[in-house]
Amino acid sequence: MSHKIIRSENLNDMPKRYRTQLINSLSGFKSANLLGTISEAGAENLAIFSSAVHLGANPSLIGLISRPFTAEVVRHSLRNIRETGYFTLSHVHEGIYQEAHHSSARYADGVSEFEQTGLTAEYLEGFKAPFVKEARLKIGLEFKEEKFIELNNTYLVIGEVQVIVLPEDCLFEDGMIDLEKAGTITVSGLDSYHRTERIERLPYAKPKQ
Amino acid sequence: MSHKIIRSENLNDMPKRYRTQLINSLSGFKSANLLGTISEAGAENLAIFSSAVHLGANPSLIGLISRPFTAEVVRHSLRNIRETGYFTLSHVHEGIYQEAHHSSARYADGVSEFEQTGLTAEYLEGFKAPFVKEARLKIGLEFKEEKFIELNNTYLVIGEVQVIVLPEDCLFEDGMIDLEKAGTITVSGLDSYHRTERIERLPYAKPKQ
Repeated sequence: MSHKIIRSENLNDMPKRYRTQLINSLSGFKSANLLGTISEAGAENLAIFSSAVHLGANPSLIGLISRPFTAEVVRHSLRNIRETGYFTLSHVHEGIYQEAHHSSARYADGVSEFEQTGLTAEYLEGFKAPFVKEARLKIGLEFKEEKFIELNNTYLVIGEVQVIVLPEDCLFEDGMIDLEKAGTITVSGLDSYHRTERIERLPYAKPKQ
Repeated sequence: MSHKIIRSENLNDMPKRYRTQLINSLSGFKSANLLGTISEAGAENLAIFSSAVHLGANPSLIGLISRPFTAEVVRHSLRNIRETGYFTLSHVHEGIYQEAHHSSARYADGVSEFEQTGLTAEYLEGFKAPFVKEARLKIGLEFKEEKFIELNNTYLVIGEVQVIVLPEDCLFEDGMIDLEKAGTITVSGLDSYHRTERIERLPYAKPKQ
């Protein structure tokens, strides 16, 4: 198999969009979540995020990367999270991926991506932030902390799991969620959506004797 | 469809392993990477990581979550990254996922997971840290920063991309890597491996008029 080698100096010479596509696809397959928030004034916001990452099980923490928040570019999701202290993640499935992708369009402040995409805001369990009604697997989180990453002016936003809503038949006996059965899909790069097919679950790895 | 609701108080009542399985699968599908490092003394280390996350394209940054590093539990990968300033990520594909999973077994300090798993350490491009010879898509990174997350004593380890090695025919014209063609797989929870099938690439999302 013939290989291509890309060095940092090649990255510097690339057109910006080419480099963005390349690096966004580099880390591997990513989670596909819809981030639901609401401002104190009641304006709902919905945005697709591919950066949700497991941080730990006890406490149950999930992190998200938010891009730079400046006077010029207000990140509505991050502002709402700071204001209310709550956010939701709803897994993207094959029936809603086009609507989910559409939520990444840049709408003005006060415009609800729920309305624009046709997805439905749903309030569950007395939770302040909206979930996506059409999703099957939904997580309500309490904002715990943000870490500013000076290297590129982004934020790691950390939430603690408060509530999980999932289809009854999508839990394995040992507690693992059967994401594939729930229809959760995965994303690569900025715009490529993929269904999955399980190869195998492997037993807990132990050292060879 | 019948739904199950799990609240934070239910999480607190769960057996530890059940909760670990549940929360590890909650964020969605994850990247599957082998983290290659070497100590100053020359001891190689290899460990599977599902927490690699895209942080930004310019500079080209990837983050990883490392679990607690204490006097009792030394994380060999993190120690090596701190010592040498370099690490590699090699994408897991279907031909090496069992070996990759095996790298998560807890071996004593000084034991090379390369030897134990049968994967081969490869030195490319004068890069200090070892790549996985059997992988198809390989990334060499320079350690830039670590962020300590007090909430659960973990670290966000941040590296800047220095070199990318990938199959010649796995780049789209716009710069995106065709991960599926490269055979990269995805992981869910702690132990479930999945191949992917592309549904669609969608165009850049624009607001409705």
